[in-house]
Amino acid sequence: MEKRLVFGHKSPDTDTVCSALVYADLKKKLGEDFEAVRLGTVNEETKFALDYFGVEAPRQVETVSNEVNEVALVDHNEPQQSVDDLKDVRIVEVVDHHRISNFESAEPLYFRVEPVGCTATILRKMYKENGVEIEKSIAGLMLSCIISDTLLLKSPTCTQEDIDTAKELSEIAGVDLDAYGLDMLKAGANTKDTSAADLISLDAKEFPMGDAKVEIAQVNVVDTEEVLARKEELKDAMTSKIDDKGLNLFVLAITDILKNDSTVLALGKNTEKVEEAFNTTLQDDVAVLEGVVSRKKQIVPPLTNAFKG
Amino acid sequence: MEKRLVFGHKSPDTDTVCSALVYADLKKKLGEDFEAVRLGTVNEETKFALDYFGVEAPRQVETVSNEVNEVALVDHNEPQQSVDDLKDVRIVEVVDHHRISNFESAEPLYFRVEPVGCTATILRKMYKENGVEIEKSIAGLMLSCIISDTLLLKSPTCTQEDIDTAKELSEIAGVDLDAYGLDMLKAGANTKDTSAADLISLDAKEFPMGDAKVEIAQVNVVDTEEVLARKEELKDAMTSKIDDKGLNLFVLAITDILKNDSTVLALGKNTEKVEEAFNTTLQDDVAVLEGVVSRKKQIVPPLTNAFKG
Repeated sequence: MEKRLVFGHKSPDTDTVCSALVYADLKKKLGEDFEAVRLGTVNEETKFALDYFGVEAPRQVETVSNEVNEVALVDHNEPQQSVDDLKDVRIVEVVDHHRISNFESAEPLYFRVEPVGCTATILRKMYKENGVEIEKSIAGLMLSCIISDTLLLKSPTCTQEDIDTAKELSEIAGVDLDAYGLDMLKAGANTKDTSAADLISLDAKEFPMGDAKVEIAQVNVVDTEEVLARKEELKDAMTSKIDDKGLNLFVLAITDILKNDSTVLALGKNTEKVEEAFNTTLQDDVAVLEGVVSRKKQIVPPLTNAFKG
Repeated sequence: MEKRLVFGHKSPDTDTVCSALVYADLKKKLGEDFEAVRLGTVNEETKFALDYFGVEAPRQVETVSNEVNEVALVDHNEPQQSVDDLKDVRIVEVVDHHRISNFESAEPLYFRVEPVGCTATILRKMYKENGVEIEKSIAGLMLSCIISDTLLLKSPTCTQEDIDTAKELSEIAGVDLDAYGLDMLKAGANTKDTSAADLISLDAKEFPMGDAKVEIAQVNVVDTEEVLARKEELKDAMTSKIDDKGLNLFVLAITDILKNDSTVLALGKNTEKVEEAFNTTLQDDVAVLEGVVSRKKQIVPPLTNAFKG
């Protein structure tokens, strides 16, 4: 069978990197040849998970059509979040848990999106449905995905299915869910050694909203002040990204994983949409959004509505 | 639990009508309240299937947001093929086997598309996955869907999964697959008593291709000449549809279910795209496409490519 590639979104996070590895593992066990690749740097949190379970990171690629004719997508479906030459390959399968937008196929394909907290929760079901046993390290990767995407089961995106799956996987992986989870999140919450340019791009996603281009980056922290102390540096990096990409709005969400709040720093010509969406006032470009931790569920929908209105 | 509606595409065919009924049955057995509705007239083939298995047709609706807040779609995902006020309701689930195009959601949902011959083949799996037993009449409806969409397992869209599912369902339904299948297809192939306006709209779908609006209608027959004898009447009906909807191209595919060929009648300002797509020459607006029986697999993709080129 022809070789295919599988990958998650740009600015890869733990769910995107590990779900690609897990997908390739499942397909290999079903006799199909998929190689997991990634579209950007492995962040510190993901590195912690990969090291802990002794799994190598996928190799990084810039394009895919030079290598293969067919690909699978995990953890995303919007083309602008995917590889640049996506239109030059055939997408044979998508496994995702995000809104569906801008996706177009000339022919039918496998396309499975479920409203759960994490791609790996769907992949776990696919192992079951296909009667494939899960190795310890693969269980560890899937568990890491769930912990990352649900902020240790605390995000409003977290469903009962994610919770049940995480518990089951922690047993297979042989780790204590809470202890491992907090260690992993903290590994990703170290912002001191990360440049401002990286902080605003490591977990950044672009969304078309109405006629506007909006980029929303998120960084998990245990100390919000540590990041805000670098505000001028961050604003410079954001401004140059706004100019480069012609963005209408750039929102950086600084999410406190212990307090479960987010502080947003918003720049661009449409910052009033942030005030409108969250019924708040930006002070020196900053506002605190209490109880907001999920970009997907708590930031994208109200902002999308604000741009519609 | 709040009541929801489930429906297939406009110009409903057997898979669309019966899959909506089957979906509602499955959900009911899982404790959810879905009512199946339809967006157009029940065709003769579908009527045969419903009568044979003693099931009432779903009621017809023009809009849904006056009744419910949430809906499920079966057998389609492209908004222009769906109910007119789709944008005013929340789509909670999609089960389909077509290309994905123009579908947008503000939030994640259940979205399951598989490249099989028929929606009911996926629904059959959903009964299995949920451990729900299938009643005789429901098995008969699902079987009818597969027979209709795969032209009795002969279409190139038919997969091994469709074949296996059809055999299994024919046993539960207690019918001979071939004998029942041919009777059902023939019931739908009676064109004499159908007006030209109905012939071009009973199974018609609109597709955006590049910047063009293309409508492709299909009618199954056992005698192509019987339809072509009414060519002028059909052309009048097609021309007025082209004017009404501002179409660039209208293709009527007359598919011989015994010979497995299609004769196409093409009108509009872009008929050259038909010649290009199928490497043929229209004579008096007509061309025979040998071995072509599937709109989805053999007509839409080459035409889409012709409009791109």
